[in-house]
Amino acid sequence: MKYFVGVELGVKNIVVGVVDKYGKLIRKESIPTLKDRPYNQIVEDIGKLVINTLDQEDIDKKYVKYIGVGCPGTPNAKNGTIVRNYTLNFHNTPIRTELEKYINLPVYVENDANCAALAESVAGAAEDIDCSVTVRIGTGIGGGIIINNKIYSGFNYAGAELGHMVVSFNGNKCTCGRNGCWEAYASATALIKQAAEAAEKCPESTLNQVTNKDYTKFTETIIFDCAKKGDQTAKDVITQYLFYLSEGIVNIINILQPEVIVIGGEIAKEGEYFLKPLKELVSSKTYCQEVRQTDFKLAQTGSASVVIGAAMLGVYKNMMLHGNVLI
Amino acid sequence: MKYFVGVELGVKNIVVGVVDKYGKLIRKESIPTLKDRPYNQIVEDIGKLVINTLDQEDIDKKYVKYIGVGCPGTPNAKNGTIVRNYTLNFHNTPIRTELEKYINLPVYVENDANCAALAESVAGAAEDIDCSVTVRIGTGIGGGIIINNKIYSGFNYAGAELGHMVVSFNGNKCTCGRNGCWEAYASATALIKQAAEAAEKCPESTLNQVTNKDYTKFTETIIFDCAKKGDQTAKDVITQYLFYLSEGIVNIINILQPEVIVIGGEIAKEGEYFLKPLKELVSSKTYCQEVRQTDFKLAQTGSASVVIGAAMLGVYKNMMLHGNVLI
Repeated sequence: MKYFVGVELGVKNIVVGVVDKYGKLIRKESIPTLKDRPYNQIVEDIGKLVINTLDQEDIDKKYVKYIGVGCPGTPNAKNGTIVRNYTLNFHNTPIRTELEKYINLPVYVENDANCAALAESVAGAAEDIDCSVTVRIGTGIGGGIIINNKIYSGFNYAGAELGHMVVSFNGNKCTCGRNGCWEAYASATALIKQAAEAAEKCPESTLNQVTNKDYTKFTETIIFDCAKKGDQTAKDVITQYLFYLSEGIVNIINILQPEVIVIGGEIAKEGEYFLKPLKELVSSKTYCQEVRQTDFKLAQTGSASVVIGAAMLGVYKNMMLHGNVLI
Repeated sequence: MKYFVGVELGVKNIVVGVVDKYGKLIRKESIPTLKDRPYNQIVEDIGKLVINTLDQEDIDKKYVKYIGVGCPGTPNAKNGTIVRNYTLNFHNTPIRTELEKYINLPVYVENDANCAALAESVAGAAEDIDCSVTVRIGTGIGGGIIINNKIYSGFNYAGAELGHMVVSFNGNKCTCGRNGCWEAYASATALIKQAAEAAEKCPESTLNQVTNKDYTKFTETIIFDCAKKGDQTAKDVITQYLFYLSEGIVNIINILQPEVIVIGGEIAKEGEYFLKPLKELVSSKTYCQEVRQTDFKLAQTGSASVVIGAAMLGVYKNMMLHGNVLI
């Protein structure tokens, strides 16, 4: 039996998972990242945690085929570095070279959202689907594009920044500096902001009661719960939010026509209450109505998505990796 | 020596070209489409023109490897039909089956903009480039995505509708029924409309003199010529237009990160006067500045682009064609 190791190098935690060839998680361990220390100390801890996790599962290293690391930021999948990541303060950080000091195995490095998309493709909502797009709605909007079972991220590995597609030029300011990016309208952050603005204008809304007017307490769940209980302000906020979300999704369909779009993030927990009206909105707006239409699914790999996808990087290589790039 | 035949089935003309294995055009012939007759008569004429063109070049049919047909509308590349095309009134029209009645050779069917993108990739501005996007600016905005030297158009062959990416939700009405599509701001039609509105507001502009206030006479060339001669209204129109154009191009880069974007259409004739400020605008707005940036080029295959790309369809098959789909 062959095993695959996936690492999620996050801002808060390092998570290591051992995965089988079907992308099934066998064991998962984590430690704090302590992100403000030098990168080589972080990578040393990753190496130790990988060895510990394999030991605890009694797996000999010779049965492990690849290690993959998923990390926020822009990777260079070819040379195994992170070109730039602001939250971890990485700049051309040589993750592969550093990790190989501790474990003599092929190491792949990818963006975390791309890993999550690969996880959904291998062992989640888009299993057995050649072409899918995963949209993760959180602080921002992360995206991953899977074409013919592989990650597609362009010639420089920096693509699939779906959140930074402008849907309203001269519109709301985005964290990236541009105006009108999709994530400035359709991220969880944007939804919460929209709910706070609406609640402020409408004192009688239950949105005010549940948070005692402390809008920093808003979550996707609170807003959806108010709507489900019949609060008109919350309902209106969600209707408007679904419009924003659908505009970006229709763009993705018109450009990429994936067979499946997988929606991840906290909001996915709202299930059909959220997905049904979204599907209806999208299907009324796609450009070509007379072909088979893109299907929508909720993410299935949950909090293990980056670890599972990272573990599978060596099997389903990035489309732009030609030949054996590890040498 | 092997030859390849490309057909452009256009609204006005049927063009047939014979191409060598490098995508070089050897001979081109055309006849009127006479689009209001039944499709089988149109395809019969295509068959005859193919045979005539080969005869005139004294090429035996046994040296021809494939035939490709490029046509506006949404193709089904797998079964060789055009699913829907409004201008030619095609609906599940079996181009391959019909054409095979006249010539016993493998027939491929594709969207014309996808063919143009393939032509640029094989024998034009994106030669030797694995991943490129071609944007054709005309009545609308046509697009073609090339990944690893093949056309990518999604699981249902309906993708790459770049013009129908919304860049301003609730914005200008588009011919597709949606509001705020890129082509409603950045097509040649949109530029001409923007120039007419500006000229009307500004009687002293030379835009009025050259057309004698008949704005139906506007062309991209007239507007650019007025700007080059120093007319401030025309200059302002172009500045605003380049902003619109750049917003969609930056979106394409953030999502697809192609190595090259090829710009085609009449406007490409403006060369560096048009391309230089566009490049500057785009490079100031892309999401990831610290990786190799997408290059810009002007289309090189000109009026033969669809014919050349169609001829090459059998060699560089659509990414979604697995195995021998012709049987």
